[in-house]
Amino acid sequence: MTPEDAEAILRDYFAPWVQRLGLGVEEVGERHAIVRLPWSDDLARAGGGLSGQAMMAAADTATVVAISAARGGFVPMTTVQQSTTFQRPVTGKDVLIDVRITKLGRTLAFSEITLTADGEVEPAARASTVYAILG
Amino acid sequence: MTPEDAEAILRDYFAPWVQRLGLGVEEVGERHAIVRLPWSDDLARAGGGLSGQAMMAAADTATVVAISAARGGFVPMTTVQQSTTFQRPVTGKDVLIDVRITKLGRTLAFSEITLTADGEVEPAARASTVYAILG
Amino acid sequence: MTPEDAEAILRDYFAPWVQRLGLGVEEVGERHAIVRLPWSDDLARAGGGLSGQAMMAAADTATVVAISAARGGFVPMTTVQQSTTFQRPVTGKDVLIDVRITKLGRTLAFSEITLTADGEVEPAARASTVYAILG
Amino acid sequence: MTPEDAEAILRDYFAPWVQRLGLGVEEVGERHAIVRLPWSDDLARAGGGLSGQAMMAAADTATVVAISAARGGFVPMTTVQQSTTFQRPVTGKDVLIDVRITKLGRTLAFSEITLTADGEVEPAARASTVYAILG
Repeated sequence: MTPEDAEAILRDYFAPWVQRLGLGVEEVGERHAIVRLPWSDDLARAGGGLSGQAMMAAADTATVVAISAARGGFVPMTTVQQSTTFQRPVTGKDVLIDVRITKLGRTLAFSEITLTADGEVEPAARASTVYAILG
Repeated sequence: MTPEDAEAILRDYFAPWVQRLGLGVEEVGERHAIVRLPWSDDLARAGGGLSGQAMMAAADTATVVAISAARGGFVPMTTVQQSTTFQRPVTGKDVLIDVRITKLGRTLAFSEITLTADGEVEPAARASTVYAILG
Repeated sequence: MTPEDAEAILRDYFAPWVQRLGLGVEEVGERHAIVRLPWSDDLARAGGGLSGQAMMAAADTATVVAISAARGGFVPMTTVQQSTTFQRPVTGKDVLIDVRITKLGRTLAFSEITLTADGEVEPAARASTVYAILG
Repeated sequence: MTPEDAEAILRDYFAPWVQRLGLGVEEVGERHAIVRLPWSDDLARAGGGLSGQAMMAAADTATVVAISAARGGFVPMTTVQQSTTFQRPVTGKDVLIDVRITKLGRTLAFSEITLTADGEVEPAARASTVYAILG
């Protein structure tokens, strides 16, 4: 799977509201993906910080890309559980979402996600997700 | 605090992208709030189901309303952690988001959130959040 | 299923270390269970408070009881995910663990758990769990 | 802080029941720790697998060691939230618990924990914790 294939998945399967995040796929690998959430004032709350809602949505979406890459193409799946911690505010910067699939089972997949503001070292947020694979 | 006061908080503090969820406040109480997420095809993924991203975002946003109600007005706060489970698909129906504040401390607040499709009994999703209160 | 049947499950399926929690089953219903964690200094950390480890373990164990009750007997299952928040310290009191099964699917079960010190109203801790049902 | 200092923390601050896990400190660093959970039948449930309860308790405990190391000594702290996913069974092997502190704030600390059976590459479980630092 190429980043272009992965971007087609973003266009074809996600809600229009989610697509307005403007996510772009930087890299897909056997068990990981890196997705970019471009900075936009549209995603910022009062005070100027990136909304946590956008980070949770981006983490969930990036996981679908990574699982699809691991499976060699999109398969029907549904989020079972997502846990997210918010550790540092982001203002005026893109966020890179690094997803690692830690288990790809027949019916369940697990991933770990690190969200880092572009150019920073320490994470803005961390998430873990459990997906049920339906196909 | 009235539902109208709470809707002013939705307008004043949230990202434009979050406001496009179209959340409305049905009820606010001493330690709870009920918020409505209106059905919209804009929030539906391929296949027609309400996106999990919209449910997580609505749960987070509704918690801010409930904590503000519990404090008698908006106070600066930031999400520390959110855990969400997705239990039943929602198609073509509004979702009611019921938030209960289980602890309102000086610096941390905890809430439990049940998301239920309008007219249903069993939850579509459940979430718990931890907030840091900054003011 | 009676509380006695449920206590037999505690004896037969759990690790000896978990059994040393001394859990007792107060009530089992169609989709819920109430389990008691008796106070013991053995479970208290320095300072005298009940350890969070004991509360997480009790929540997990009580869920197995509740799912078994909902299924009419023990079935093989495994914890997929547990999220727990710790809200109030407990000292010198039993803890009642109230488990509600919010979805009992063919392969996945979801529960919500409230842990409350005996005689208190506000929760000491809250947990949610996802289980995979294997049988 | 040396591993011996860290083991003194295990002895001095944890509940006797938690100490029976037999945790040993392998390594402590500026923002991480590696702790060993020795295999014991006492921690195994029916069927022979390591209980999830023991893994959650070990993850929580190892985080206290890592935060103490990061602070240069034990400070009073309390778990706010722990999320754990269970990905692979463990039978007959020690488990290594690798804790990374991803943020050490003045009042909140965040960590990511990977639990791996000794000699394996893929994780048995993953956890994230949020701690409130009280001192």
